[in-house]
Amino acid sequence: MNVSHWIRGCICCLLTFAQLASWTAASSNPRTLVSVEDVAEIQATSDSSPSFARFLEDTRDRIDAYFKAPPDVPIPRDPGGGYTHEQHKKNGIAIYEAGLLSLFTGDESYANHAKQLLLKYAALYPSLSQHPVERSQYPGRMFWQVLNEAVWVVYAIQGYDAIRSQLSDAERELLENGLFRPLADFLSIGSASTFNRIHNHAAWAVAAVGTTGYVLDDQTYVDLAFKGTNLDGSAGFLKLVDYLFSPDGYYTEGPYYQRYALMPFVIFARIVDVNEPSRDIFRHRDGVLLAAIYACVDLSYNGLFFPLNDAIKDKGLNTVELRYGISIAYRLTEDPRLLDIANVQDGFVLTADSLKYAAAIDAGKSEPFEYISRLFRDGPMGNRGGLGVLRGGFGIADQAVVVKATSHGFGHGHFDRLNWLYYDNGNEIVSDYGSARFLNVEQKEGGRYLPENTTWAKQTISHNTVVVDESSQFQGDARVADEHHPTIVQFDYDTIPLIRAATEHPYENVRMDRVLALVENVADERHLVVDIFTVESDQAHQFDLPTYFEGQFIETNPEPDWTETRNLKPLGSTNGYQHLWLRSRHDLDAKENFAFTWLADGRFYTVTSTQNVSGSVIFAQLGANDPNFNLRPQQTFIRRVNEGRKVTFVSVLESHGEYNGAAEYTINNQPTIREIAYAEDADAQIVRLRTATNATYFLAFARQPNKQLSHTINLDGTLLKWDGYAAAFNGEGKEI
Amino acid sequence: MNVSHWIRGCICCLLTFAQLASWTAASSNPRTLVSVEDVAEIQATSDSSPSFARFLEDTRDRIDAYFKAPPDVPIPRDPGGGYTHEQHKKNGIAIYEAGLLSLFTGDESYANHAKQLLLKYAALYPSLSQHPVERSQYPGRMFWQVLNEAVWVVYAIQGYDAIRSQLSDAERELLENGLFRPLADFLSIGSASTFNRIHNHAAWAVAAVGTTGYVLDDQTYVDLAFKGTNLDGSAGFLKLVDYLFSPDGYYTEGPYYQRYALMPFVIFARIVDVNEPSRDIFRHRDGVLLAAIYACVDLSYNGLFFPLNDAIKDKGLNTVELRYGISIAYRLTEDPRLLDIANVQDGFVLTADSLKYAAAIDAGKSEPFEYISRLFRDGPMGNRGGLGVLRGGFGIADQAVVVKATSHGFGHGHFDRLNWLYYDNGNEIVSDYGSARFLNVEQKEGGRYLPENTTWAKQTISHNTVVVDESSQFQGDARVADEHHPTIVQFDYDTIPLIRAATEHPYENVRMDRVLALVENVADERHLVVDIFTVESDQAHQFDLPTYFEGQFIETNPEPDWTETRNLKPLGSTNGYQHLWLRSRHDLDAKENFAFTWLADGRFYTVTSTQNVSGSVIFAQLGANDPNFNLRPQQTFIRRVNEGRKVTFVSVLESHGEYNGAAEYTINNQPTIREIAYAEDADAQIVRLRTATNATYFLAFARQPNKQLSHTINLDGTLLKWDGYAAAFNGEGKEI
Repeated sequence: MNVSHWIRGCICCLLTFAQLASWTAASSNPRTLVSVEDVAEIQATSDSSPSFARFLEDTRDRIDAYFKAPPDVPIPRDPGGGYTHEQHKKNGIAIYEAGLLSLFTGDESYANHAKQLLLKYAALYPSLSQHPVERSQYPGRMFWQVLNEAVWVVYAIQGYDAIRSQLSDAERELLENGLFRPLADFLSIGSASTFNRIHNHAAWAVAAVGTTGYVLDDQTYVDLAFKGTNLDGSAGFLKLVDYLFSPDGYYTEGPYYQRYALMPFVIFARIVDVNEPSRDIFRHRDGVLLAAIYACVDLSYNGLFFPLNDAIKDKGLNTVELRYGISIAYRLTEDPRLLDIANVQDGFVLTADSLKYAAAIDAGKSEPFEYISRLFRDGPMGNRGGLGVLRGGFGIADQAVVVKATSHGFGHGHFDRLNWLYYDNGNEIVSDYGSARFLNVEQKEGGRYLPENTTWAKQTISHNTVVVDESSQFQGDARVADEHHPTIVQFDYDTIPLIRAATEHPYENVRMDRVLALVENVADERHLVVDIFTVESDQAHQFDLPTYFEGQFIETNPEPDWTETRNLKPLGSTNGYQHLWLRSRHDLDAKENFAFTWLADGRFYTVTSTQNVSGSVIFAQLGANDPNFNLRPQQTFIRRVNEGRKVTFVSVLESHGEYNGAAEYTINNQPTIREIAYAEDADAQIVRLRTATNATYFLAFARQPNKQLSHTINLDGTLLKWDGYAAAFNGEGKEI
Repeated sequence: MNVSHWIRGCICCLLTFAQLASWTAASSNPRTLVSVEDVAEIQATSDSSPSFARFLEDTRDRIDAYFKAPPDVPIPRDPGGGYTHEQHKKNGIAIYEAGLLSLFTGDESYANHAKQLLLKYAALYPSLSQHPVERSQYPGRMFWQVLNEAVWVVYAIQGYDAIRSQLSDAERELLENGLFRPLADFLSIGSASTFNRIHNHAAWAVAAVGTTGYVLDDQTYVDLAFKGTNLDGSAGFLKLVDYLFSPDGYYTEGPYYQRYALMPFVIFARIVDVNEPSRDIFRHRDGVLLAAIYACVDLSYNGLFFPLNDAIKDKGLNTVELRYGISIAYRLTEDPRLLDIANVQDGFVLTADSLKYAAAIDAGKSEPFEYISRLFRDGPMGNRGGLGVLRGGFGIADQAVVVKATSHGFGHGHFDRLNWLYYDNGNEIVSDYGSARFLNVEQKEGGRYLPENTTWAKQTISHNTVVVDESSQFQGDARVADEHHPTIVQFDYDTIPLIRAATEHPYENVRMDRVLALVENVADERHLVVDIFTVESDQAHQFDLPTYFEGQFIETNPEPDWTETRNLKPLGSTNGYQHLWLRSRHDLDAKENFAFTWLADGRFYTVTSTQNVSGSVIFAQLGANDPNFNLRPQQTFIRRVNEGRKVTFVSVLESHGEYNGAAEYTINNQPTIREIAYAEDADAQIVRLRTATNATYFLAFARQPNKQLSHTINLDGTLLKWDGYAAAFNGEGKEI
């Protein structure tokens, strides 16, 4: 990415500032995401972007409707999802939007709306003590948890900033001494344990307190935000930036929480940039905050985040967090590919950067965002495993393989080391359940995480990775899991995009090694996904490797040996197994092939698999032990080995053909790969493919982390020679 | 609809014809959907419609690719879905498209492509006897069933028509005597039992033979097409038009087959119109063919057909049949609302009418198609029941209630008298399974109807109507079912759109009466769907009333009395019950309320129900006795009364609130209706509603078919008085 532009941008701002300084002679507000120097410009230019003008019109309609009713500032009573909770959330955003609208439109009635609502809060807030709902370890006053209070301030203080210069001294004193200072005190000194944590909740509190400092021109709060309540730098903004993001901009809780965590960081960083450009905050740690914004895009497919850990699956780039993030990143980089993201976003935000972003789109400056294979290292130093993303094309709906070999990700982490996901044709095909939660739906446990989030969604069996002896990784103990991480052995995207990861911590005395590769130009016009998963132990174990598939079951080859059609029972009794209904079983000899074809959104998918020892394949459906109908009916097939010591599960996935019900045709309903076989030595792993036309191919994978090595293997007289991690060969052993 | 325009259109054509007649002096071809007089015009104007030009470009690319390979005309061998079957289908369409492209582009290479392929068929066809796959009662030669052969001719003869004037006499003789005459002879005299049937298969044969007659200028074939093989008018085109469509343009097999059946009718009628305008074919039977085209639109929701009877659910207006139908209807009527349908169609067709249609769209002449409540009477005389469509708004994604009270619909009919469907917010919410079939997917019974189509999809329990004693209507005998039809007692769309239908044939000694109404402006901003289903018998029976809901279970009120979480068993043993897994049961007292809320696509739905006697509610999930994983996991709740003589099931459905996971808010997750009660006398049925704010409303429904009557009922002192079928009252008895 190119960051040279934004420095030029800042210099321009300073020049403009000199010319406009007289406009708010009595004050230097606003000074957050719209600054004094922005005001005249946005009022002059907001019409010049038709799409931003439409957004502004929609926002006006919404805010006009909101303020038709008299202000409703209830005594705090309800938890998340309840009436008072939602009303305070809405009011905080309404203060912000009304304030900002007054700047964008020059219409003073909005400033008045914001002021009236703020005065109600100034009247209420001093009377509040701890919130009556005692569910949170970190309670607030307006809200049941202090987190929401910090978010409220981040919005409301910006709304106040927008109108501050138009208020009387008395009004300012009332709002600052009656509301914003008490809030900032409560969020910092009054909630020091939250404020000083290295945790995304702290980022909101820091952003709230720091922004209050800038808006009120009070360095005390800025210092608290940058240094923590001990003022020694052991906590505060920079510490959070340093510890919560990896060098690649990856946030350890996963993409869903990355989005959420990102918001206070990018908003506050941009406000820092406006107020103290000399801090050069976006260059801190080689520009990690910009990297984190870009990472959000790279950690998505077709606009939705990879649903790893506790993720709500409808979250993606079309969220307010990314509207701030992407427009700020564009302002700083002028990277035209960022403009492409607007295609999956429904609107803009009320900032000067967003207006510039919209104007650039309307001016036709957009270029396609090209999705590329990337490894996101995890951990502050980048040495705690990582998330591999292999892309089979630059497009938003091309193939993607996601491999999770990160550290655990704290309390929202799932026990899913070496889990993988597969996307194609715009859809999630090999899937992750995400979290078991109906966000904000009161009837479902008040909108919080459901019990099934623990009993199902977090368990290893709910993921596409090996389960040992029907127990979850680390015995389901997140604290132990947090101490360990897998190793990224190989990552490459040059010839054959692949990732190899290994781990030995999740289960005692069990070593796991998995390589996943996206192979092009072999046997088929589309990509093949090759998966070799090796588990080894000194003792015999049961190994289960599930694959959760989205779509309709078409066929297995061979047919099942046993099918349950009249009496479904759970597959097991605990660790998530109690939620799966057992539907059928295939018994497989060692090295026997098993193929399964399903249909999703008009395209066929076939996994052809084999393993070195005898075993079985189980088809199961989610929904057992679910008295409240909380679970979605996911489907899976599980490859099982009962008493294994060294087991290698090998599979090749291909997408093929098309089913078109409207036009009534079906093509290539049968897979191209008809048989696979596996061979290995100490140095390499080989998969042999035979196609429908009886052509043979070999795919060779070196085991060593060193990419510089050369490899040779003799397979019954066929000599395969290659350099680097992997290579594809035709039947005569010629590299292709 | 306005049909005056098309007469003017025809007069214009005649004038144009005189001017252009010299163009094809040696011949009067083409004379099908592109006529001699169209040719010069389309070559001059096809670029003037950018969207048609794009379509033409795409078609050229596709056809160019197709003809890159040498012609592949295999010896017939496979059934539907198999290689030779699909190849011949493709070739037929390729002949057509290449021929027509030569007219649209003036590029002779396309004419040559069509000719070369036709010559291959002329070489093959005379050698063929009956197709080797002996599965059809009506076998073909190129195809396993004669139907496909007729479809092939409808395409190929038009392709031939397009190039005929450019062929030598020898080529014409070869193609006509070697191919088209033998085909027309085989389809008519040689397959007389199909040709003379009153059935949609006959329509294809008639269209094929009649079009051959026009193209070859051979009156014999035209006579066969109009009069049947006995040439006495006992069969043939007009007979088919008269018997297969109701006066409202409804085709008795239902919307899915209406689309399919429509194609030969509208194509052939338009060809008749071109060749013999004096027949005034589109005015035949008060313009029933135009009515049938419009009916297809009215029988759809958000672009997809109501999936009644044996329907593939992805079929809708975006099908080639409707591209012909809608463009022909537009040419005849110039109704600008028809242009709106293009928004749910992905392309055009290679006809002069389609070009005019596209040009009108590009010229901005489109007006919104307004969906309105309509009754489609069934049967040639319109007296065999009907299909009621109630619309809660003009938009394509507004609410719709569909009530099926038609006759059975022959072999593809389902045993679903008084079934209903409900649509909202662009989605099917109370749903119909459609057919159990993976169209053309070879692995699934060769792409034909699955066994589960009979054991599940056709059975009464798979529909939203009452099942008596766990048996299907008419004991599942289609021949008996075909003899009877329900009565449409009331249909109205003036104040409260409603339909009341009654029937006593499906079960011996059981009378059924159901009224469904779409009520606006009562208690809620959106519509309420009120459903009163009365079943009466002299003997005691078990009555089951299922509701298949699409979406995620949120909550029931009260909670279930019993839930099965560890051992699922089928709900019954036969008539479809064997496919449902029993999940939970509520026991209900007489008059007790039962409410169920679910969530679909971000909107909540709540059914609040009651019945006059005690019973239960069963939640069940589809999938039992399904060894081949053929069934989708549909969900239902079934209201059951065990020993009922007179049972009235009453329910009110409302859509409410919004769940927005991306923006993280949930509003109005609780229903507005909190309690319902039911009262009746000999003249009327009353539903009392109590809302969340404790407001009371009454909905009154008269029972009699006479709309002119006035009604009075005294409910514990509250006097309700109204005229007509239905009325809504506030708590004081004042009509609203």
